[in-house]
Amino acid sequence: MATPWKSRYAQRNQRMGRSIIRELLKYTQQPDIISFAGGMPAPELLPIEKAQEAACRLLAVRGAQALQYGPTEGFPPLRQFICDRMNRYGITAKPSNVFITTGAQQALDLIGKLLINPGDQVLVEEPTYLGALQAWNAYQAEYIGVPCDDHGLRTDLLEGALRVGPKFMYILPNFQNPGGFTLSLERRFDLVRLSNRYGIPLIEDDPYGALRYEGEHLPPLVALDSDYQSETGQDGHGFMEGNVIYLGTLSKTLAPGLRLGWVCAPEEVIDQLVLGKQGADLHSSSFDQALAYEMVKDGFMDEHIQVIRKVYGERRDVMLAALKRYFPAECSWTRPEGGLFLWARVPEWIDTSEMLKDAVAAKVAYVPGSAFFAEAARGRNTMRLNFSNAQPSQIEDGIKRLGDLLKAKISRYNRLEAVVSLAKE
Amino acid sequence: MATPWKSRYAQRNQRMGRSIIRELLKYTQQPDIISFAGGMPAPELLPIEKAQEAACRLLAVRGAQALQYGPTEGFPPLRQFICDRMNRYGITAKPSNVFITTGAQQALDLIGKLLINPGDQVLVEEPTYLGALQAWNAYQAEYIGVPCDDHGLRTDLLEGALRVGPKFMYILPNFQNPGGFTLSLERRFDLVRLSNRYGIPLIEDDPYGALRYEGEHLPPLVALDSDYQSETGQDGHGFMEGNVIYLGTLSKTLAPGLRLGWVCAPEEVIDQLVLGKQGADLHSSSFDQALAYEMVKDGFMDEHIQVIRKVYGERRDVMLAALKRYFPAECSWTRPEGGLFLWARVPEWIDTSEMLKDAVAAKVAYVPGSAFFAEAARGRNTMRLNFSNAQPSQIEDGIKRLGDLLKAKISRYNRLEAVVSLAKE
Repeated sequence: MATPWKSRYAQRNQRMGRSIIRELLKYTQQPDIISFAGGMPAPELLPIEKAQEAACRLLAVRGAQALQYGPTEGFPPLRQFICDRMNRYGITAKPSNVFITTGAQQALDLIGKLLINPGDQVLVEEPTYLGALQAWNAYQAEYIGVPCDDHGLRTDLLEGALRVGPKFMYILPNFQNPGGFTLSLERRFDLVRLSNRYGIPLIEDDPYGALRYEGEHLPPLVALDSDYQSETGQDGHGFMEGNVIYLGTLSKTLAPGLRLGWVCAPEEVIDQLVLGKQGADLHSSSFDQALAYEMVKDGFMDEHIQVIRKVYGERRDVMLAALKRYFPAECSWTRPEGGLFLWARVPEWIDTSEMLKDAVAAKVAYVPGSAFFAEAARGRNTMRLNFSNAQPSQIEDGIKRLGDLLKAKISRYNRLEAVVSLAKE
Repeated sequence: MATPWKSRYAQRNQRMGRSIIRELLKYTQQPDIISFAGGMPAPELLPIEKAQEAACRLLAVRGAQALQYGPTEGFPPLRQFICDRMNRYGITAKPSNVFITTGAQQALDLIGKLLINPGDQVLVEEPTYLGALQAWNAYQAEYIGVPCDDHGLRTDLLEGALRVGPKFMYILPNFQNPGGFTLSLERRFDLVRLSNRYGIPLIEDDPYGALRYEGEHLPPLVALDSDYQSETGQDGHGFMEGNVIYLGTLSKTLAPGLRLGWVCAPEEVIDQLVLGKQGADLHSSSFDQALAYEMVKDGFMDEHIQVIRKVYGERRDVMLAALKRYFPAECSWTRPEGGLFLWARVPEWIDTSEMLKDAVAAKVAYVPGSAFFAEAARGRNTMRLNFSNAQPSQIEDGIKRLGDLLKAKISRYNRLEAVVSLAKE
């Protein structure tokens, strides 16, 4: 007999959503394509030698621990290291406020598992991180989108959305993925104030915070929230007892292949998420956690981030200059102060999903902007461009190819418009 | 103001279940406790040297790949290796039938995410693997328990349970965790036939299959199901198009710290689970996958499994002999032909959860059997004993301590009974 149970998969899959990133990563594997599609670190910056040295030492000194089961919360020295790093950004958390996840993607999944019941609403930026939508679609979340501009989330539009009663808000304050913009200090204050007023938690996703190429670092929401708790004199509310769940990752500063991220939150929240993690994968790789710690424990992270900042900062500049040179005047783009991405707008009548086929034929790839909206019809004339993965000469070349494509489209469109006008006369 | 949203965590947590394993692992960390509680490999058998050699080579040869993002399905050479291994056990799957998970625990989570809607029923063995209950509690599963005896699941009781309409069945056919028993060949045939008749999929969890210390290997359900599909002449049903999702792991044969498991299933099922995995953690560690492959690609797995079988087989024998010598006559236990665990029954009036405090005071630990039942009231007079982690002398010593404890309890009880009888006369 047939196996009708399998059709249930297909049904559920509608909700889980096919990943555009995944389909696109296939293009990036073709060696002759210049890909602005992924969010991958530059391969030549991956700390291979450091990893080799650390792996040899680790296995010599505490090999059995690295290969054995470990605690769900994570490798204690790595949790301490993460606290020390966060402390530089004004987050004075204790190791008990931190647990290690299998990439920050797992943190999104565990938050969804714990907080989302089918039909619950999540407040997201428009556009927002595709992987978050994918994680929460599996729990049948609905979304309330709030628009962003060059200073991040439009907090002036937030209150109406909060009155609808979302389960939580999801914000990428620094060099947003995909938008490239950074939430201004004033809006950070607004956001924290509104989060507390409405009692609606904030998920602060900060994968790129350390990768700032210009301008001044802005305080994380979790630190502002903590200040807010003390200033408003909450009974029993001190640091790390507030309204924010902060997510970090080693994927952009060390190596994504190790799949190490973390959650920083009030202890009672950590306890619950850790229980969810036990059911999800018991714990993250003991080996990778111990390896990462062995790599970073003697100050390597600082050196390495300096190198990353320099290289990615230059690539951003190359991309911005190339956009100015090669993109038609009808287009605009964000000017990120850090991170991996910028966001470009093309004329409204161009559908970047449609255009992707032509782009791939011209051996260049990007992510169509509509992928970053909960409502698929939005953002059709936008695209996300990654500047960390390709070499400067490739960036120049790839942006030129995209520019030529756009110019050809615009010129055809203008000719057609002219013909239509003539016909009407 | 307070943060009322946090109470939702506590609420959901009721369903997610606090892990007894986790609480107990804390005892095992105390160096002076003899622990039969965990399911950990013997630390002295962890392949540290092999890992060191492989890690150095890997980072020298393809370091960038090991540290970079990778495909969600997993590292292709490792998927091929897994197919080759499974082939020895009669499972002739293609790499497209296999994807890599962050430990087999993640496979359980992804299956839950895809198949379980709140209130759905899952058919489980009684007792069953605690981690599966924990994974599926998060999706608000209900359970239908079917009793087991020394030959595994009582398939004669299965049909009534299947008529209730469970979403799927979950079976550990080899050296079951926690029971230690193995499903007989006849019952395997019954199970596959009934699964097909009722169109209810089978999850076959096989972490210990390769660790057989005596007797003949029995064919996996996935292979029998495949035969069933061809024999009954299903249209378009060939190998790997059947009713079984097979789960494997490298945790017991290589190293649990690497968190590598796999799913083997029909392609259409793999596709859906892979989408779920993307939202869950994007992919499993590139580094660990490449490291595991580097370790095993030249035949190391066979050598290593031989060593494990010898050592664990001896430890099982030591535990069985010690049970015979030190446990009171009122107790019984299973005699596993492989794996890591055996299952002991004590007199009905003894609650092993209560007794655990005394055991820990006597510096010995086990897992109370009630942890392995969906209904907490079941299995109160049972316990799971692990024989892989402790040294033979410790096993002897620990079982003696437990035996002394039980004998003291029974003797007190008998004295009390005698007094009561006297009083009645």
